[in-house]
Amino acid sequence: MPMATIRSNSRPASAARKRRAPGRPPANGPELRPRLLDAALACYVRVGIAATSLRAIAREAGVTPALLHYYFGDASQLRQAVVDERVLPAIATLRARLVFDGAPAEIATGFVDAVAELVASHPWLPALWVREILCEGGGLRDLLRQFVSPLPQALAARFAQAQRQGALNAALDPRLLVVSLIGLTLFPAAGAPLWRETFRAGDVDAAALRAHTLALLGGGLGGT
Amino acid sequence: MPMATIRSNSRPASAARKRRAPGRPPANGPELRPRLLDAALACYVRVGIAATSLRAIAREAGVTPALLHYYFGDASQLRQAVVDERVLPAIATLRARLVFDGAPAEIATGFVDAVAELVASHPWLPALWVREILCEGGGLRDLLRQFVSPLPQALAARFAQAQRQGALNAALDPRLLVVSLIGLTLFPAAGAPLWRETFRAGDVDAAALRAHTLALLGGGLGGT
Repeated sequence: MPMATIRSNSRPASAARKRRAPGRPPANGPELRPRLLDAALACYVRVGIAATSLRAIAREAGVTPALLHYYFGDASQLRQAVVDERVLPAIATLRARLVFDGAPAEIATGFVDAVAELVASHPWLPALWVREILCEGGGLRDLLRQFVSPLPQALAARFAQAQRQGALNAALDPRLLVVSLIGLTLFPAAGAPLWRETFRAGDVDAAALRAHTLALLGGGLGGT
Repeated sequence: MPMATIRSNSRPASAARKRRAPGRPPANGPELRPRLLDAALACYVRVGIAATSLRAIAREAGVTPALLHYYFGDASQLRQAVVDERVLPAIATLRARLVFDGAPAEIATGFVDAVAELVASHPWLPALWVREILCEGGGLRDLLRQFVSPLPQALAARFAQAQRQGALNAALDPRLLVVSLIGLTLFPAAGAPLWRETFRAGDVDAAALRAHTLALLGGGLGGT
């Protein structure tokens, strides 16, 4: 765990002189670090990054604030660690899984599957996206601009190219098609607790959601 | 303005004995009340209902907290006034405009147009929806359950009926179709500041968004 070692070595010198918190592990505790990041994510999702104190994360993780400070420094440094070690790898996973070439239907199917896999492996992501990107003043909007925006831009460019070649419905807007894809994938994932309750749709699993979405994209409402 | 009169008469007796705030209008000031509700909505959208103090709303409206207290009582009573006089009428507008009968394409078109009109006449609504309903722990989720849920439930029932009659693509889930419709209307409205920036899509107006969405719903991705 070279990352954990580097972080621990780079903690403020003052932290090392603080009283030993009862929950501090014997060494660098590589197994504890991921749990602390999980606790931070849980708090971010529940009340937002700005409203989350180190104390709240410590309570969530069942450790002392001193221990959290020992591992990460202050709330802002912990936030950066969550971004570096959780959010950016999630974006990299999405980028690696997306399809940028081929027919529009292949690209759209690739998008539906990439988001489904992303959500399955990062269940905290849809709620964090809603609160910190979609919400006005969201704390991760800069991250979106810097690391995520090239992906929808590349997809829209590819859709526009396909449309010029007659391979995409001429009545669609290639840019809005990317917005539509997000609205048909990440939005339903974020809203799942609500629609499952509204429609008593506990029976709808990932495969059913996928089949529905691809049917809508493939053929529209249509008749049988 | 009977509502304003009732509210003013029902203010806590203690408020009447407080020093006259410099900004207090001569009478019940019917023109001021809507402006105070607007200010509350602006604060709710920006930082959330739970994090909005009477003081912040007063600052937003350019009045004293005492004046706000005079009109509405405490922060919770003001929140209730915003719900009663702004949010519930918006839901009633949506309900009146939705189409519940006819072919699936007519119902879907009715939905797209109803949401577009709702957003045009209530521009604060998409952002409030994201923060207070879609966000985990949103402050208006109870409102959704009580007043909004019957609408998607009725739409899903109608889509299911149409599907049994062979008038709707058999591969769609009638309940998820309502989720898809929200993801193609209210979500793009809420995310407009983001996608307009990402795609430099300042040229996309309401008519273009409508045309795109109906094309996607009507024919899917298709080729030309």
